[in-house]
Amino acid sequence: MKLCRFDDDRLGVIEGDQVLDITTALDVIPASTYPLPRHDPLIAHLDEVCARARQLMPDAPRKKIDQVKLLSPVANPGKLVAAPVNYLKHLEEARADSEIHHNSQVIEIQRIGLFLKATSSLIGASQPVSVRHHDRRNDHEIELAIIIGKPGTGIKKQDAWDHIAAYTIGLDMTVRGPEERSLRKSVDSYSVLGPWMVTADEMGDATNLDFQLTVNGETRQKANTRDLVLNIPELVEYASSFYTLHPGDVIYTGTPEGVGPVKPGDTIVAEFEKIGRMQVAVTSA
Amino acid sequence: MKLCRFDDDRLGVIEGDQVLDITTALDVIPASTYPLPRHDPLIAHLDEVCARARQLMPDAPRKKIDQVKLLSPVANPGKLVAAPVNYLKHLEEARADSEIHHNSQVIEIQRIGLFLKATSSLIGASQPVSVRHHDRRNDHEIELAIIIGKPGTGIKKQDAWDHIAAYTIGLDMTVRGPEERSLRKSVDSYSVLGPWMVTADEMGDATNLDFQLTVNGETRQKANTRDLVLNIPELVEYASSFYTLHPGDVIYTGTPEGVGPVKPGDTIVAEFEKIGRMQVAVTSA
Repeated sequence: MKLCRFDDDRLGVIEGDQVLDITTALDVIPASTYPLPRHDPLIAHLDEVCARARQLMPDAPRKKIDQVKLLSPVANPGKLVAAPVNYLKHLEEARADSEIHHNSQVIEIQRIGLFLKATSSLIGASQPVSVRHHDRRNDHEIELAIIIGKPGTGIKKQDAWDHIAAYTIGLDMTVRGPEERSLRKSVDSYSVLGPWMVTADEMGDATNLDFQLTVNGETRQKANTRDLVLNIPELVEYASSFYTLHPGDVIYTGTPEGVGPVKPGDTIVAEFEKIGRMQVAVTSA
Repeated sequence: MKLCRFDDDRLGVIEGDQVLDITTALDVIPASTYPLPRHDPLIAHLDEVCARARQLMPDAPRKKIDQVKLLSPVANPGKLVAAPVNYLKHLEEARADSEIHHNSQVIEIQRIGLFLKATSSLIGASQPVSVRHHDRRNDHEIELAIIIGKPGTGIKKQDAWDHIAAYTIGLDMTVRGPEERSLRKSVDSYSVLGPWMVTADEMGDATNLDFQLTVNGETRQKANTRDLVLNIPELVEYASSFYTLHPGDVIYTGTPEGVGPVKPGDTIVAEFEKIGRMQVAVTSA
């Protein structure tokens, strides 16, 4: 199933070029009192929501996808985890380009590990990336993003697939500079997820997905998830060797070569096999 | 006012060596439906909660502090921001000690910026720090932690104090190693806040606070907040030049010299002038 959040926090199922409004399926999620849960309530109840959605679909109101405002398919991730330099050719370009490495040593992922992006930076496909720090290079990075469904810590890679609820496209927008990634990649609007999520059962094999990113029609990044350095189960194992992964936590799996700058007025188009295509505007903060 | 969370998510006011149970003051916080807010509900409603607490205090049930289980005073921070090497003498010790710097260059805070700690790593004073990665050095770092009360982005340092709701003691527990801080400092239980929070009006001046940390009775860290490199308003200005600060976001302001290892079985005591004292057990994950 392809599930989207749209307009004023409505819930939809994607069918062809249409959104089926199944917002009342959210009624299966209990209200939360203080203290709030550490998981995303939709993802923690995804099976029940999908079951209810299937009942609602035949009579659901429909809209064209291009007439709705797409929000992040995950509203309340506990954490946004991300993998740096997780495609070999991107490691090579980062080491070669002083505008990327900023005189810091670019270290391979097995040594530098994962980093965090602030959840306050999260937006959906129809919400523009607002560039801040115009004196710096602000880069696009397209990535496969995985959404954790089942909590776990110390997860072994052979069990990792059971912990994944869904997939989506991630843009890990980045201010270049000397600071640690968890700061430079956490600017408001610098974490895009969308256009919707594809549940794990619908995705099937995610290890051989073509994807590409264009800016104003020019192809910048073009790769396949088979070239990940740490693959999906290894990323889940590695992350959960440090912390518990909760339902709704997102892992941005890393970007391939071809990262480059965007500026206000640009249009980014990100496309992933078996997920879909999203168009993201770039504006100024 | 000194507010604590204790036992089974109860809310208390500290008076001398006692906790006044004013849990029903939480009724002023509305229940949340999906999607959940990005702020901490208690901190976003702190004024109303404190007003209600004052009404409840005269007849509130009392317990001795040492008979309650202290939880993190902030339950749902949107982000845990932290300042690296923000005391000059700690920068010097980090540069001198290969077990701290791990062959990575230790860069001053003005260049390396701030980092994030996973909110899933958050515990309170009565919940033990559980050491993971026993083959590494696992260090204590005591810090003043500030709790944001008013949302803002691009906050100027002269306005920063208006955005601070409360203060608490932070332990920024750290696995040493080559990985970025946002990974090594995000292990489950590696972010301690407690023993309670002190509201900004009760704190008054926070720029001249003595504090110290002992392990098994041995003094390890002893400093004063006057020696911060980036001071409190500068940290708020700097952080909010990258992202919006929401009510309940926490800034760990950085640790002074004297960081050192802990191991299962150890007892950490952290003490801050005008806040209080907390005892934190170290166990094994």
